[in-house]
Amino acid sequence: MGKGGRVDKMYYLGVDLGGMSIKAGIVDSKGEILAKNKVHTGRERNYTLILGDIAELCRGLLDETGLTPTDIHSIGIGSPGIPDKKNGVLIRSNNLNFTNVPIREELRKYFDLEVHLENDANAAALAESIAGASADVRHSVLITLGTGIGGGIIIDNRIYSGFNDAGSELGHMCIVHNGLQCSCGRKGCFEKYASASALIYQTVNAAKNNPKSLLNDLCSGDVSKIDARTAFIAEGKGDTAAENVVKQYIEYLADGCMNIVNMLFPEVIVIGGGVGNEGENLFAPLRKAMRKRAYTLDVPETKIRGAVMGNNAGIVGAAMLGRQI
Amino acid sequence: MGKGGRVDKMYYLGVDLGGMSIKAGIVDSKGEILAKNKVHTGRERNYTLILGDIAELCRGLLDETGLTPTDIHSIGIGSPGIPDKKNGVLIRSNNLNFTNVPIREELRKYFDLEVHLENDANAAALAESIAGASADVRHSVLITLGTGIGGGIIIDNRIYSGFNDAGSELGHMCIVHNGLQCSCGRKGCFEKYASASALIYQTVNAAKNNPKSLLNDLCSGDVSKIDARTAFIAEGKGDTAAENVVKQYIEYLADGCMNIVNMLFPEVIVIGGGVGNEGENLFAPLRKAMRKRAYTLDVPETKIRGAVMGNNAGIVGAAMLGRQI
Repeated sequence: MGKGGRVDKMYYLGVDLGGMSIKAGIVDSKGEILAKNKVHTGRERNYTLILGDIAELCRGLLDETGLTPTDIHSIGIGSPGIPDKKNGVLIRSNNLNFTNVPIREELRKYFDLEVHLENDANAAALAESIAGASADVRHSVLITLGTGIGGGIIIDNRIYSGFNDAGSELGHMCIVHNGLQCSCGRKGCFEKYASASALIYQTVNAAKNNPKSLLNDLCSGDVSKIDARTAFIAEGKGDTAAENVVKQYIEYLADGCMNIVNMLFPEVIVIGGGVGNEGENLFAPLRKAMRKRAYTLDVPETKIRGAVMGNNAGIVGAAMLGRQI
Repeated sequence: MGKGGRVDKMYYLGVDLGGMSIKAGIVDSKGEILAKNKVHTGRERNYTLILGDIAELCRGLLDETGLTPTDIHSIGIGSPGIPDKKNGVLIRSNNLNFTNVPIREELRKYFDLEVHLENDANAAALAESIAGASADVRHSVLITLGTGIGGGIIIDNRIYSGFNDAGSELGHMCIVHNGLQCSCGRKGCFEKYASASALIYQTVNAAKNNPKSLLNDLCSGDVSKIDARTAFIAEGKGDTAAENVVKQYIEYLADGCMNIVNMLFPEVIVIGGGVGNEGENLFAPLRKAMRKRAYTLDVPETKIRGAVMGNNAGIVGAAMLGRQI
């Protein structure tokens, strides 16, 4: 129990362990952040040093808020890669160059607290489902359209990730049999067609094939400057080549999203990541493309919403791991 | 409570309501059938008559086993189509020509018992997970390779079918963007490539394109006699055209199965339906094709097993609905 009028409250430490930076925060049971901070990961270092930095980051937050470890329910860590949640071991993370790192054991050298481990995309989905875009429903799915497509599945307000904690790799479902080669080893993965990277690739091709398109003006003729917004900006100005890029991109995105619906029928699909920032410019035509693919219109449909947790998703989701267990 | 030494036992009525026949059985809590019977559906009739026949079928089974309604925990109905499970209403079933049929209300005119309603493919998945091929695991998926591809998802030993009971349409995930038109309205659905019907279509094409293939001998030159076994039989005898059919079919099947794995990572995928009867001739190369597609080999893999409940799956799964609630 806490001190100074906090006896009725319990707080959670959440750590978003990324390849570039480590973010940590103290979060209340509703998912509100009281304090947060970050440091450089220095991923080339031994894991004991990295986890030492995490402990120091957490200590700093406790000092800042005047809390002590006895006010804290648990520490949650969200990390890229595949966790062994039961044993608190990070089996593998290419972003961090970690193999079988005993995260829980290591952190318990610093804190006598529960330590929960989770994949970062799953943690973000939990954050949206507790304090974000899908807080009002029990079953939701988050997809983030970034470099790849990450995702998390929430069933009955809890993360579902399969019998071995390795599921919800939503970017790696095949939507194009024998399609583009994916780094995961499969061909035709959803993320090869509907991630931000895929959209950039499609936009660059369209710019090259349509020399008079506004796409080339927007990047001043240097296609390496094209980003995931370029096609949407040019489409908004009525450029035909851009319209075709956006239209085709949404067809791919609708195929993946409808696969999620026909399999899991979540009440909400939350869309985050760079492309998700397009908001209704993306969601309105996506809903239309999904309705065209609907197995039935006799049942309530899945709602498409934008992610709202932003950069806090990792911290809040990791912190809330202790709340859902 | 029951009579005659049955005070410690509880039984379940299960009804498999199909377009052609209605099967019903009395099932114990382990999924063992004590007695079963069936009648012709007569689906052209008003639903009150069909449900009257169901009640009569159930009465007959009670008489046959010497049980009374007080020995029965609940009645479960498995039916094609989309159920409103909460209200016990069958929203729509094309096979039965039913729209908004109040199954529960109707059956309660005959029996003062709980009535549970479920999609028949989901019920079959539950049967396998309680008394069949996946009885040893908590998370499993059943896919049936028949006219289409049906499926059911079991999470934590319970059916999962989305927020509106309309999920787990596993046959209707897109694996070929802009592929073959499916009756569901989408293009490139899994079942257009990996159902028994799809395999027959692929075999017929191969027979036509390869006049010297054994495929033509096996059907005595009449391709309308080709069935889902033909390609496997000819492959077993070393026919090259048949080998190519089977190989390509397994590539499609592996894409769909691996989508299920990357999303849900069940401990077991149970494969039923006509093509499932091929057993290891199908499963061994399927496992190999799936391993090639695996996102990671650092975690335990999903096991591929054949369905074992056969024609009893519908009765047992429907009966067990009352056990899982």
